[in-house]
Amino acid sequence: MNHTSLKFTLAPHFRISKLAVKLQILPAGTCLITLRFLMTFLSVFSCRVIQSKNEAFPVGSHVVAYCGWRSHTVCDEKGLIPIIAAWPKDISLSLALGTVGMPGLTAVYGLEEILELKQGETLLVNAAAGAVGSVVGQIAKIKGCKVVGSAGSDAKVAYLKELGFDVAFNYKTVDSLEEALKTASPEGYDCFFENVGGPSSTVALQQMKDFGRIAVCGNISTYNDTAPQTGPYPQMVILMKQLKMEGFMQNRWPHKNEETLKRLMAWVKEGKVKCREHVTKGFENMPAAFMGMLQGENIGKAIIAV
Amino acid sequence: MNHTSLKFTLAPHFRISKLAVKLQILPAGTCLITLRFLMTFLSVFSCRVIQSKNEAFPVGSHVVAYCGWRSHTVCDEKGLIPIIAAWPKDISLSLALGTVGMPGLTAVYGLEEILELKQGETLLVNAAAGAVGSVVGQIAKIKGCKVVGSAGSDAKVAYLKELGFDVAFNYKTVDSLEEALKTASPEGYDCFFENVGGPSSTVALQQMKDFGRIAVCGNISTYNDTAPQTGPYPQMVILMKQLKMEGFMQNRWPHKNEETLKRLMAWVKEGKVKCREHVTKGFENMPAAFMGMLQGENIGKAIIAV
Repeated sequence: MNHTSLKFTLAPHFRISKLAVKLQILPAGTCLITLRFLMTFLSVFSCRVIQSKNEAFPVGSHVVAYCGWRSHTVCDEKGLIPIIAAWPKDISLSLALGTVGMPGLTAVYGLEEILELKQGETLLVNAAAGAVGSVVGQIAKIKGCKVVGSAGSDAKVAYLKELGFDVAFNYKTVDSLEEALKTASPEGYDCFFENVGGPSSTVALQQMKDFGRIAVCGNISTYNDTAPQTGPYPQMVILMKQLKMEGFMQNRWPHKNEETLKRLMAWVKEGKVKCREHVTKGFENMPAAFMGMLQGENIGKAIIAV
Repeated sequence: MNHTSLKFTLAPHFRISKLAVKLQILPAGTCLITLRFLMTFLSVFSCRVIQSKNEAFPVGSHVVAYCGWRSHTVCDEKGLIPIIAAWPKDISLSLALGTVGMPGLTAVYGLEEILELKQGETLLVNAAAGAVGSVVGQIAKIKGCKVVGSAGSDAKVAYLKELGFDVAFNYKTVDSLEEALKTASPEGYDCFFENVGGPSSTVALQQMKDFGRIAVCGNISTYNDTAPQTGPYPQMVILMKQLKMEGFMQNRWPHKNEETLKRLMAWVKEGKVKCREHVTKGFENMPAAFMGMLQGENIGKAIIAV
């Protein structure tokens, strides 16, 4: 071969520096992949195979790759996951990083493995317009549940209503989160898909029904903290209402991924799960896109197109 | 009949006032019970039937009664639970309020229904010399687990070692709770039976293994608070370690009580579960006994003998 790979590095002040590296040899068993889409800061990429000495990854196939920040990478099968078979032509491969990828798996496993959400129950999800939250709410609707979502802008709230959420509100503009939650579901909540953490959790836990279940999926309100935020210990309400709270990551059920991704793709094709992406062009704009995500700028999955 | 019942009332400054009431009629279907033992402040009593017009509760039988604060009470079967059949003569009936009663059920259900404790696992229990904690630790030993207990005096620690706890320490005198927990189980804890709450929880959660389970049974460190105590939100450690935390009360599994009480009694008779009680004599001393319990004075179940 005779390819140039751009190696991206995080430079001071969150700038991306680039270095051109010549690639010359493609060892047996490897293939050369080129970066198409990436998730902000996580080293998970949607890639296309452009040269191959590995039958499992023929030229033209697409993979999700866990590798370094490079425009072109020589890989063996370690760290490469083929995208599901028969990926439809009209569905963007970026979805392999979103609704039909890790965030989609996170939504399904949180609802099915952790919350064991049942038809007719009421679910609360926050950061509801995000990559995970928006899928959570739509799947809960497919399962016949009442879905209440909170988000941080009126545009996001409008998007949630478009997606079929029963109630959606802007937590930044309501007079009281407690009142908003009570109004949305006066009888309380069976399940709470927690993406935010911090003080809003304290309020939400008080609105759970007895025996309510909480899936702790994210803590976006605390990721920027230099010291841990404090608030009332939740153990007392967990005891009094006999709540169950469980933290989880999607990589706990790898044996279910294939079947789950197929279900997600089917929902997407049928239009039952809609997805919106917040696409930023150019690897060098990734840090700004990441900071924007933490500040709540994006609706749907934050994706970088290279 | 022609009995005098003493009616006890909580008077100002936590004193008990008494009022004599004449009992004259025993309606069909009821029986007259006399108070033998009670739990501090909870209206749960171990009683003896002394007159009866109800075949289910013959004279001389013993019951656990949920009724008012009286020396003698006329009851129908509502609020009366017969103690298990064949209660051994040499086992104090006060145990119907302790190891072979609610606290014993609490220990079993916390370990079996909530924690699903498995042989070979490591369990942490705090307030370990209390009515529930001491039974928790002993049952976990029966189940083949390593048991670490914390308590608030050297006498309690000595008692825990007598009961077979693998490690016991006085949380009031250790230099650092974190170090004490690390030393007791450097590889961390699979399960945590939480009776205390407050800042000690924050430390304990950090010592859980990944996928650790926490049964929230009590929050004794916070019951006296006029405003909720605050501390770091636990959701971040719950997420990172994928912990499961669940609050529970023993009255959730009434259909299992009979079988469970029989098992508890068998363990007591075989000497596999030992019990100590902290008995205070006289109903009028109950408030002082209750306050003593909150201050950590008792080893084992706090019981009032009338």
